[in-house]
Amino acid sequence: MSAMRQQGVKYNFMATALAIEQLAKVSKLNLEIQEIELKNAIGMICAEDIYSPTDLPPFDRSAVDGYAVCSETITSASPNNPIPLKLLSYSPTLSSCSYAVPVATGQRIPEGADAVVMLEDVDREGNIIYVLKPVPKYGNVSRKGEDIRKGELLIARGTIIKPPHIAVLSAIGMTRVKVYRKINIGLISTGSEVVDPSYGLKAYEQGLVLDSTSILLLSVLSMHRFVNVNWYGFVKDVKQEIKAVVEKALNENDVLVLTGGTGPGETDKTFEAIVEMNRDVKIIARGLAVRPGRPTSILVANGKPVFLLSGFPVAAYIALHEIVLKALCMLLKIRGELFIEIPVKLSKRIYGAVGYDTYVRAKLFKCNNELCVEPILLHGSGVLKSLLEANALITIPRNVEGYEKGEVIWIKLL
Amino acid sequence: MSAMRQQGVKYNFMATALAIEQLAKVSKLNLEIQEIELKNAIGMICAEDIYSPTDLPPFDRSAVDGYAVCSETITSASPNNPIPLKLLSYSPTLSSCSYAVPVATGQRIPEGADAVVMLEDVDREGNIIYVLKPVPKYGNVSRKGEDIRKGELLIARGTIIKPPHIAVLSAIGMTRVKVYRKINIGLISTGSEVVDPSYGLKAYEQGLVLDSTSILLLSVLSMHRFVNVNWYGFVKDVKQEIKAVVEKALNENDVLVLTGGTGPGETDKTFEAIVEMNRDVKIIARGLAVRPGRPTSILVANGKPVFLLSGFPVAAYIALHEIVLKALCMLLKIRGELFIEIPVKLSKRIYGAVGYDTYVRAKLFKCNNELCVEPILLHGSGVLKSLLEANALITIPRNVEGYEKGEVIWIKLL
Repeated sequence: MSAMRQQGVKYNFMATALAIEQLAKVSKLNLEIQEIELKNAIGMICAEDIYSPTDLPPFDRSAVDGYAVCSETITSASPNNPIPLKLLSYSPTLSSCSYAVPVATGQRIPEGADAVVMLEDVDREGNIIYVLKPVPKYGNVSRKGEDIRKGELLIARGTIIKPPHIAVLSAIGMTRVKVYRKINIGLISTGSEVVDPSYGLKAYEQGLVLDSTSILLLSVLSMHRFVNVNWYGFVKDVKQEIKAVVEKALNENDVLVLTGGTGPGETDKTFEAIVEMNRDVKIIARGLAVRPGRPTSILVANGKPVFLLSGFPVAAYIALHEIVLKALCMLLKIRGELFIEIPVKLSKRIYGAVGYDTYVRAKLFKCNNELCVEPILLHGSGVLKSLLEANALITIPRNVEGYEKGEVIWIKLL
Repeated sequence: MSAMRQQGVKYNFMATALAIEQLAKVSKLNLEIQEIELKNAIGMICAEDIYSPTDLPPFDRSAVDGYAVCSETITSASPNNPIPLKLLSYSPTLSSCSYAVPVATGQRIPEGADAVVMLEDVDREGNIIYVLKPVPKYGNVSRKGEDIRKGELLIARGTIIKPPHIAVLSAIGMTRVKVYRKINIGLISTGSEVVDPSYGLKAYEQGLVLDSTSILLLSVLSMHRFVNVNWYGFVKDVKQEIKAVVEKALNENDVLVLTGGTGPGETDKTFEAIVEMNRDVKIIARGLAVRPGRPTSILVANGKPVFLLSGFPVAAYIALHEIVLKALCMLLKIRGELFIEIPVKLSKRIYGAVGYDTYVRAKLFKCNNELCVEPILLHGSGVLKSLLEANALITIPRNVEGYEKGEVIWIKLL
């Protein structure tokens, strides 16, 4: 942990992992559980362990369209030695091995039968079928419990529900599922210079900046269906205004994310404004040991996590992934990862900043039969184009100097 | 291409790529263009090439909070040799190199200045700042056009809009964007044995099957925001009923996806029912050279693609990814891939079916510092659990026998 005094601001550039751990100790997210229709549950967080109430298949059933038979009766069947069987209509029991009954795919195998001959391996003449090919015992049969066993855990609490979960739960007759209600995230943009894009390009001439940061965060968060974002618009660098909107947003949300106003500049008032509020405010981190995004700060106000991110789109985008979403996954006890990490070969040497987790936007490309990654080495954390090109994020941990060209490193897919 | 006659059904197991190509020749998707709010555009298909109307930054601007100076005036600055500059209030011009003006991050650099000293590299006493550290020419300055150049292509027609696109378009003052309207996909489940999961587990005892296939397809499609799914429920294996619902769905959608009823069984009536309709129907493929999912068929009815998928959840799930979504990407001229492909090491030898593109569900896991993939080798294409475990799909192309253990293969992330 390094410390730096800048214009009266004392930063403690805390390690992210430590900050998230401390955040988890003093804040909590108690999201109520609600039962919703299964078809609306995609992307939501499952709030219960669900065990199968049944074997699936619940009985031996046919895997094809054909005829249920006794396998031992047809062991010698061939086109030169067709075995005749009397065809009955379907019934739950095959009373004799000289009979066969038609079964459709998925249909229960009658008791007494133990295999299914496929339609195309049979010649049919009226009520007689001639079997042209043997089928082993349980051939073309899906055995009871072969897919899912009664009592088996199908989905654990904390799992983000995906289409296959929906399919499995449907197959066991569930039409509703318990999930945590969406987490409400209040998003506030601070900065007197930031204006809505509808203001137009003249903004830049006037020393103003068209917002791209908050709409970027809004867009990323909106892709996670367990999140509901409430957007509070643009707030000037005036403490009283910041306090008022934070007060309102704290009442209406589980978590706050603010952009801008965390730097050492004279106009950066977000952190102080919140600390001064007539609220139970705990400081978790004033500055994090990350680059970009060192001024990123974390507070807890009335038990609710408050993330103060950079006003720069790239720094805020990275902090949203590496800090906010990581912390939410921990606080919500989400199982598994929101993003996929894969090993790839590095096309260029890169360095980290000593003492800081360094995040480098990067671009994947095919190289021979491998996947390689090229770091996008641009200075400013305001460089938007780098995000258009980037489909991966490289992390150089604090205790690592950097990576060599040709080294295989694990990167996160964005 | 192999052919097989089964119960009067003549399958032509056509190669998927060929089928999609032929489909593209005789069908078309003319989706109207609509202009929507940028913040609602995530996941939609951009319908225009968008070029930047401006440089970004539109002028040299400060990358930090600090003081704009002439870099040549402070080349010898150090704590032992602080260079004093007179501090003026901000103005668009720095009239002399013995002056400095405060600039906030993002603010325009006054004409005459060419660098910015950071706040912490300065001691300030009233109207005088003492610069303690030199800054090179353009140090802490974001140059005009460094991010985006005027006239540069920012997003091409056919791109699926992602958060970074939204951010960039906002930064150039766009608040609305032209996209193709959502494609309407009509989803129809056929099969007299398939019932709604609300029917409960007693269904299985009665020879019925609780639906998992259509809700699975519905869930997957609902994750693609350029798609709108209209769900027509469960239709019995009765030609007249199939025709009626297909007629209605054809009128209301751009594309149809039907599940079930494509096999060679007596109850499989979907294909015939549609061919017999009083519509302009072209047969693209009756059966595809894929496993699982050989009976998968493709028709064009009144110019609209109609995909007939297996009733089995796994076969239908794979066909949705490998056939339907692939075809839609081609027909809609979508740029890039909907799914990510990566190279991984195979943990077990696997074989394909000669003459067929074979799809194998698989599970990624970490092995040493690599990512390995284990094929889930289960027989039935109805085995749902395999989907819960699978996070990848291996394709063994028709002309490849299989892959060896330890071989690096490209797989698709699901």
